[in-house]
Amino acid sequence: MALTIGVDIGGTKLMGGLVDDDGRILAQTLRPTPADDPDKVAETIADVVRELAHGHEVEAVGLGAAGFVDESRAFVRFAPHLAWREEPLRDKVAALVGLPVTVENDANAMAWAEARHGAGRGESHIVCVTVGTGIGGGIVLGGELYRGRWGMGAEMGHMQVVPRGRLCDCGNLGCWERYASGGALVEEARVIAAAEPHRAALLLDLAGGSPADIKGEDVTEAARRGDDAALTAFGSIGDWLGQGMADLAAVLDPGCFILGGGVSRAADLFIDQARRSFARALTGSGHRPVADIRLAELGAAAGLVGAAGLARRR
Amino acid sequence: MALTIGVDIGGTKLMGGLVDDDGRILAQTLRPTPADDPDKVAETIADVVRELAHGHEVEAVGLGAAGFVDESRAFVRFAPHLAWREEPLRDKVAALVGLPVTVENDANAMAWAEARHGAGRGESHIVCVTVGTGIGGGIVLGGELYRGRWGMGAEMGHMQVVPRGRLCDCGNLGCWERYASGGALVEEARVIAAAEPHRAALLLDLAGGSPADIKGEDVTEAARRGDDAALTAFGSIGDWLGQGMADLAAVLDPGCFILGGGVSRAADLFIDQARRSFARALTGSGHRPVADIRLAELGAAAGLVGAAGLARRR
Repeated sequence: MALTIGVDIGGTKLMGGLVDDDGRILAQTLRPTPADDPDKVAETIADVVRELAHGHEVEAVGLGAAGFVDESRAFVRFAPHLAWREEPLRDKVAALVGLPVTVENDANAMAWAEARHGAGRGESHIVCVTVGTGIGGGIVLGGELYRGRWGMGAEMGHMQVVPRGRLCDCGNLGCWERYASGGALVEEARVIAAAEPHRAALLLDLAGGSPADIKGEDVTEAARRGDDAALTAFGSIGDWLGQGMADLAAVLDPGCFILGGGVSRAADLFIDQARRSFARALTGSGHRPVADIRLAELGAAAGLVGAAGLARRR
Repeated sequence: MALTIGVDIGGTKLMGGLVDDDGRILAQTLRPTPADDPDKVAETIADVVRELAHGHEVEAVGLGAAGFVDESRAFVRFAPHLAWREEPLRDKVAALVGLPVTVENDANAMAWAEARHGAGRGESHIVCVTVGTGIGGGIVLGGELYRGRWGMGAEMGHMQVVPRGRLCDCGNLGCWERYASGGALVEEARVIAAAEPHRAALLLDLAGGSPADIKGEDVTEAARRGDDAALTAFGSIGDWLGQGMADLAAVLDPGCFILGGGVSRAADLFIDQARRSFARALTGSGHRPVADIRLAELGAAAGLVGAAGLARRR
């Protein structure tokens, strides 16, 4: 059986795995990402590949990178959390490891893994929404990963949902991720806790008393224990997630949506609201099927499994 | 050379054409649409086909229908301006004309014609935006018409762009077409003319004095002659068109956009504004190519040419 290696390169850590044809991880390893030095990133990837490949016949290497990857899948044009600028990642790593290398955006790699081995099995048209600090995405259409003309597709976190709305890291105003992400959850909770502390007693207690110190875990914990401000914040991101998915359905009409990312681990606190909001906002509702909204199944390893799978199909 | 017939079925008129492999129209005919009687629509289509086929060898018939077409391209599930509800249009017409028939959404058919024979020649990833009373759309990805899982894709006129915004015919609030269509143009102009008649002297004069009587042609004519209210209304739809295209680019990253539909005949009055607004709102701007925004080239016959072309590829 042919094996490939997938490496998921995040802003803080770098996770590699030896993966078989069925998406099973046979071995796995983890390193800190030397985020400010592109050459050291390439060397760390090569170390990971050599470690995982030891004693195995490996066919190819797939890299999932948190950044804009060009259409030839050789360069990372730009990465918000790493020092990559027009970085020739594919050739740099290939020269170090002596194997064919492909580069893919990390959210795309995750979507591919979920489509093939996770919550999207059997579906041909899938929109994956990765809800973390921001919102990433991956799109599978007709059974193939969709990249766009220049490899820049599936950045749905940056659709504008509120004209002249909240400022986004991308430089624009009112992006979806400013209303429906983990970052938005914390912001909502802080605003409520500052304005109406009596609604956020538990939340403020967990955060040590100051609204500015509220973290995502605090909001989750407080919501599970019934804190009104925390529940309101989760309701708000559920609402916005549903609305944004309805906008995506108007354009893409997928068979299902898959929610992944760190915040989806607290999905029990917002997924009902997201489904209601989606069904209400879906255009042509009553004259069309309503797409499923599912939770990702593969967890934190989805990125490396997807990158390994895409290397196989290079 | 193999010939096909395309028929574009609108709410008021039905246009048929005999079309060759290169998208050339060899013969053309026009009838009023008996919009309230589905059987009469089918009979009128059959009349048109018989007239056009006379003396020619015709391979297939393609129908472009203003409505939601199912994924098997046999049924029109629902049409806002005709009496179709789960209408088995494909089989009804095939039984009458004795030829293979395919049904496609009219905006999709138009997009296909522009992609193959019009403004999109040579591009693989195209988003067509049809600006009329509302906004329709068609999407070509990797050189193929994109339909979605259930044939309901490319309804981008119904993305929400303003939370709790203007009421749309689709039942939702704040849809893109309520801000960027010909209908929106007229509404903007009427509001300005009512509130600030001194800015709309020319426009009111053309409309006979009453804001409620302002029509699309009046706004165009007044804008060409420098009327401030009319120019402001065109500026507004240009702005919203650019913003919506930027939202679509975040998701689809197309190589070009094509603007068609009746309002695009006045494109000189808003396309610069649309391009500026698009470039400003595009996420990742500076790290990616900026897609072209082009005007449709095939005019009112695009729908039938596209339907005929799709019949050939059935």
